[in-house]
Amino acid sequence: MADDQTSTPAPVDLRSDTVTRPTPGMRAEMAAAEVGDDVYGEDPTVNALEAEVAALFGHEAALFAPTGSMANQIAIQLLVPPGEELLCDADAHVVTYEIGAAAAIGGVSTRTWSPAGADLDPEVVAAMIRPDGYHAVPTRAIAVEQTHNRGGGGVIPLATLGELRRIADDAGVGLHCDGARIWHAHVADGVPLADYGALFDTLSVCLSKGLGAPAGSLVVGSAERIARARVIRKRMGGGMRQAGVLAAAGRYGLRHHVERLAEDHLRAARIADALAPFGVLAGPVRTNIVPLDLTKCGFDAAELGAAARERGVLVSVLGPRIARLVTHHDLDDAGVDRAIEVLTEIFRR
Amino acid sequence: MADDQTSTPAPVDLRSDTVTRPTPGMRAEMAAAEVGDDVYGEDPTVNALEAEVAALFGHEAALFAPTGSMANQIAIQLLVPPGEELLCDADAHVVTYEIGAAAAIGGVSTRTWSPAGADLDPEVVAAMIRPDGYHAVPTRAIAVEQTHNRGGGGVIPLATLGELRRIADDAGVGLHCDGARIWHAHVADGVPLADYGALFDTLSVCLSKGLGAPAGSLVVGSAERIARARVIRKRMGGGMRQAGVLAAAGRYGLRHHVERLAEDHLRAARIADALAPFGVLAGPVRTNIVPLDLTKCGFDAAELGAAARERGVLVSVLGPRIARLVTHHDLDDAGVDRAIEVLTEIFRR
Amino acid sequence: MADDQTSTPAPVDLRSDTVTRPTPGMRAEMAAAEVGDDVYGEDPTVNALEAEVAALFGHEAALFAPTGSMANQIAIQLLVPPGEELLCDADAHVVTYEIGAAAAIGGVSTRTWSPAGADLDPEVVAAMIRPDGYHAVPTRAIAVEQTHNRGGGGVIPLATLGELRRIADDAGVGLHCDGARIWHAHVADGVPLADYGALFDTLSVCLSKGLGAPAGSLVVGSAERIARARVIRKRMGGGMRQAGVLAAAGRYGLRHHVERLAEDHLRAARIADALAPFGVLAGPVRTNIVPLDLTKCGFDAAELGAAARERGVLVSVLGPRIARLVTHHDLDDAGVDRAIEVLTEIFRR
Amino acid sequence: MADDQTSTPAPVDLRSDTVTRPTPGMRAEMAAAEVGDDVYGEDPTVNALEAEVAALFGHEAALFAPTGSMANQIAIQLLVPPGEELLCDADAHVVTYEIGAAAAIGGVSTRTWSPAGADLDPEVVAAMIRPDGYHAVPTRAIAVEQTHNRGGGGVIPLATLGELRRIADDAGVGLHCDGARIWHAHVADGVPLADYGALFDTLSVCLSKGLGAPAGSLVVGSAERIARARVIRKRMGGGMRQAGVLAAAGRYGLRHHVERLAEDHLRAARIADALAPFGVLAGPVRTNIVPLDLTKCGFDAAELGAAARERGVLVSVLGPRIARLVTHHDLDDAGVDRAIEVLTEIFRR
Repeated sequence: MADDQTSTPAPVDLRSDTVTRPTPGMRAEMAAAEVGDDVYGEDPTVNALEAEVAALFGHEAALFAPTGSMANQIAIQLLVPPGEELLCDADAHVVTYEIGAAAAIGGVSTRTWSPAGADLDPEVVAAMIRPDGYHAVPTRAIAVEQTHNRGGGGVIPLATLGELRRIADDAGVGLHCDGARIWHAHVADGVPLADYGALFDTLSVCLSKGLGAPAGSLVVGSAERIARARVIRKRMGGGMRQAGVLAAAGRYGLRHHVERLAEDHLRAARIADALAPFGVLAGPVRTNIVPLDLTKCGFDAAELGAAARERGVLVSVLGPRIARLVTHHDLDDAGVDRAIEVLTEIFRR
Repeated sequence: MADDQTSTPAPVDLRSDTVTRPTPGMRAEMAAAEVGDDVYGEDPTVNALEAEVAALFGHEAALFAPTGSMANQIAIQLLVPPGEELLCDADAHVVTYEIGAAAAIGGVSTRTWSPAGADLDPEVVAAMIRPDGYHAVPTRAIAVEQTHNRGGGGVIPLATLGELRRIADDAGVGLHCDGARIWHAHVADGVPLADYGALFDTLSVCLSKGLGAPAGSLVVGSAERIARARVIRKRMGGGMRQAGVLAAAGRYGLRHHVERLAEDHLRAARIADALAPFGVLAGPVRTNIVPLDLTKCGFDAAELGAAARERGVLVSVLGPRIARLVTHHDLDDAGVDRAIEVLTEIFRR
Repeated sequence: MADDQTSTPAPVDLRSDTVTRPTPGMRAEMAAAEVGDDVYGEDPTVNALEAEVAALFGHEAALFAPTGSMANQIAIQLLVPPGEELLCDADAHVVTYEIGAAAAIGGVSTRTWSPAGADLDPEVVAAMIRPDGYHAVPTRAIAVEQTHNRGGGGVIPLATLGELRRIADDAGVGLHCDGARIWHAHVADGVPLADYGALFDTLSVCLSKGLGAPAGSLVVGSAERIARARVIRKRMGGGMRQAGVLAAAGRYGLRHHVERLAEDHLRAARIADALAPFGVLAGPVRTNIVPLDLTKCGFDAAELGAAARERGVLVSVLGPRIARLVTHHDLDDAGVDRAIEVLTEIFRR
Repeated sequence: MADDQTSTPAPVDLRSDTVTRPTPGMRAEMAAAEVGDDVYGEDPTVNALEAEVAALFGHEAALFAPTGSMANQIAIQLLVPPGEELLCDADAHVVTYEIGAAAAIGGVSTRTWSPAGADLDPEVVAAMIRPDGYHAVPTRAIAVEQTHNRGGGGVIPLATLGELRRIADDAGVGLHCDGARIWHAHVADGVPLADYGALFDTLSVCLSKGLGAPAGSLVVGSAERIARARVIRKRMGGGMRQAGVLAAAGRYGLRHHVERLAEDHLRAARIADALAPFGVLAGPVRTNIVPLDLTKCGFDAAELGAAARERGVLVSVLGPRIARLVTHHDLDDAGVDRAIEVLTEIFRR
């Protein structure tokens, strides 16, 4: 279990909040979890988790899935039949990091608006909706991402989402929230999870980003939709058996790791404050992501990544000039200090 | 064969250039066409048409298809494997009027830039390209539309397309031209078809828009790609037998109906000049499409459509405030005069 | 229009009944056909053909499609949602010659029974049906082929089809007839087309096999299904414009070329009688197909094909030991005599 | 963690070997597992498991997947491009219990031979293979299932598999083994796993059937294929993060639970011996599955299920007359005695 990198200290890993390892407390609950065959609907820990998460968002039901990508894709298939259309922004996780699954698996056509992260303009979305009919592909759903990963962890204001809901209702289309990091939005803006839940037909939430579980996400929605979701999950190869061992980690994370996200946000803000003088921030830091745009300072992102790695700090390189730092549960203040020291030194050169 | 609407004159149909009926000359060639079983590659008229069109664009080969949608979708499948990505604009025919086929049939994921019609900005496209790799869906091709249907028949300048080619080459991605109305661009800008051909990996061209054939399009590309295209066409249900009866119409259209498109352009310009004072033009008129945006004049597009239809003029209603007038072979000056009279009268109210 | 192969006589083409060329009478009707834009539903000849064919089979509606493959695949998509199941025999056209379209385009899973051609055993089919439910993929439809192409043109008895209908009803699944050559069954068994129509939820029928039209097929079914079929056809790239030029050929074929199929059947029987002594018939000849199995006589099918071709007779080679002769409109008695002479001579060696 | 059904004893669950719960020893290893982010390839326990399983079968590489269905479907997508063909038997797990995924996700067309379970006839398969070419869908791979689930846990003899390999090589098609229960074949026939491995291009193996892990399967194959498999897994939503917590369970099962399967086989044989007199066995019992066919005894399978459940014995009902009993790690001799007592009593009535 121990890292055998005893001579050199473990690197400060700012690549993603997916790198966290389960804590001793979480592992203890996993080891003690009551389990059953979830394909038969008989895993009590999974059933409890699904009920809890549905309740958190004020929805009827929820379904456990191995990953956030599968949870998103199940939701998209619930809302959009093959050959019909989903709208989302061009940097959305669902059309970026899910390897074309909406099209390749769901047959779902996508059109995208220019990425605006949290600065979503509902009128831009409204203008893209295509009505039902025979000549053009009809829009069936809109997806937003809260917080927005490539949008630098930005938080879409509740009022904006409310406006989008009104637009969706007027057009008779569905609304999905990729809520992998909705916990961060909840903590940053103080919006109750149920208030978010009330605005969406389906949501996906993730247990392994921020909450620290080793794996697992959920789709949230109506009982009818979640019943259909079980079939889709099985078709996609997500019907695990004694999934309670993972669900137990998720339940632990929900109890112990939501409110502490404020700490991650503070650390991200601290990093941002330190880097701001170098003109490398791509935007304001609202949650646990520090997005870097190195265009102005003329730095190459890959070079930054290599230089930092050499000195024990890992960052994500997302483009020739774009990089990202993410704070999470497995960091401590010393690690953040170290990262700031290394990065400022690099930028100073 | 005769219209039995002898009491009332036939309406002036400005809905689309797809409504044209084959001329007597075209019908005579169809009736005399030498044909064979094209699934066996034995239809001499189809083979001749394919060779002629490939030569026009300076490519190795071409394949006849029943429709422009099928020609486009074959090309997209040639350039983009399932689960990978095509970029195009959000108003492109391939993501609007082909009923989600890229996703539903090809499994192709699409991201779109904000529709700019002919005012395409290559740098916007360049910024959207995602590199090959494991984490994000890789971009494999870019599609443009020349002329641009929903973009009001606008013509993308050759220099812009050249810039896009350079970007595609740098990124190692394919470039497709939806050239359903590339004949119009050729006539409007005087750019040789082969100059367009040189810029694209695949093109689709249409025989029934502008050229007046009853049906038929072609995919143009390398011999290797067109060999694969034959299999895709058969899978899509496009492998007709004695297709030479349609190909003969296309050959006739190519010989007789390309240069005369200038006439359609002049008539469209004449309509535009007449309507300009009402502030209803959505943009400049370059070819045979007059795009109307009724937002400023506060008119409802469906109302316009109904009022015009009542008076014997048919227009396309594309949105609550968007309509379109299209000139084509089956119109004459009297019809255009009549349309101008009816429409100006309506707008005057 | 004339074959310029004046020195050598045109080969006797027994490969398929798809090789027929439109007759002068048919060409004259095509040249005179009243047409319109069928994507707008305004082609009077297409509309008339669709109404006539629907009426022939006692169904509410029909839809023209460019090919039999597209007609079949539209029907399959109408009856079976993606990820659910179609049953058919392992030699059926829909899983053999349509290039995987049911799976690749419709997402339809197929299980197949051992090919029995016309000797279909309804109990074998009944035993394969999987009920609705969560664990196994549910069967949604069964497809049969009448007459059966790879089954040597065999005719499934009406009573067998009736039994299959009862089984389908009991199980709540749909029944589709790939009726590309249902005209031949009608002529061979004297069963009214409407009696066939009454047994199926959807049928496809073909105008270019047997009836001699250059291209075109129809899907037949309820008004609700055919309305959905229009959208599927457009997505598959089958929405042609002035398709009336093809529909006119089909209408001509329906009037003039159905009853004459008896002649093709007689000629096929004559060929079969001549070849029977060589032990090469794969089964009885009921319609216009003479299936050959060269296993017993130790002949290689490709060799047979080459030897016959050299002497001006074209046959289809379908496997190492399997070949096929097909009679059709473009043959005459002299050609059949010539084919018999050539083939018996080859087999005699 | 404890079952709170203290008043009534836990039922004897013979429905499936998927119902097993992790043992204390397995849970301890899971709780202590060293983990990392497997999407980045950094989970040491997953990496170790993949290397171990690849080595067991003599292949270059392996990939962990959340379920056996996903492992199978990844393998199928590796071997068969969309629109091309897989052959398998009509009762195979891959076309029965994976909810149409081969077609719906992979676009893979399937034709099936009549289910013969372990009594596979390679010549029947050989006769179904369709060659590469333009007219018919080409066969690209054959899948077999070892042991065969719906085939009553039967074991395909090594010689039969060798013959199939020769046929596949002659035809140039791939060969996949759904080896969810290949451990049982290995134990029953004493065939080394590497001998099985040598015969297949890809295999899937399962950790949660027989081996008792809560979840997890692996695809095994060449390094090149497994590299592509990682992308497919991500697209299907199977890219979990700290998957080492599950992989640890699998490694434990591989060390401790393979050889003990002999015990399950003995218990299944004991049940079969007890039920044989009632004429309800569907076939011989070779491994841990006792397949029941109630046709002769006139019993209804659902009734049997209900009667047994009432008395604390759970069985799987697979059809109106088909049921199944499965032995596994969580049973003991007392449970088996109890099941025999209950079932014989029911059949005696």
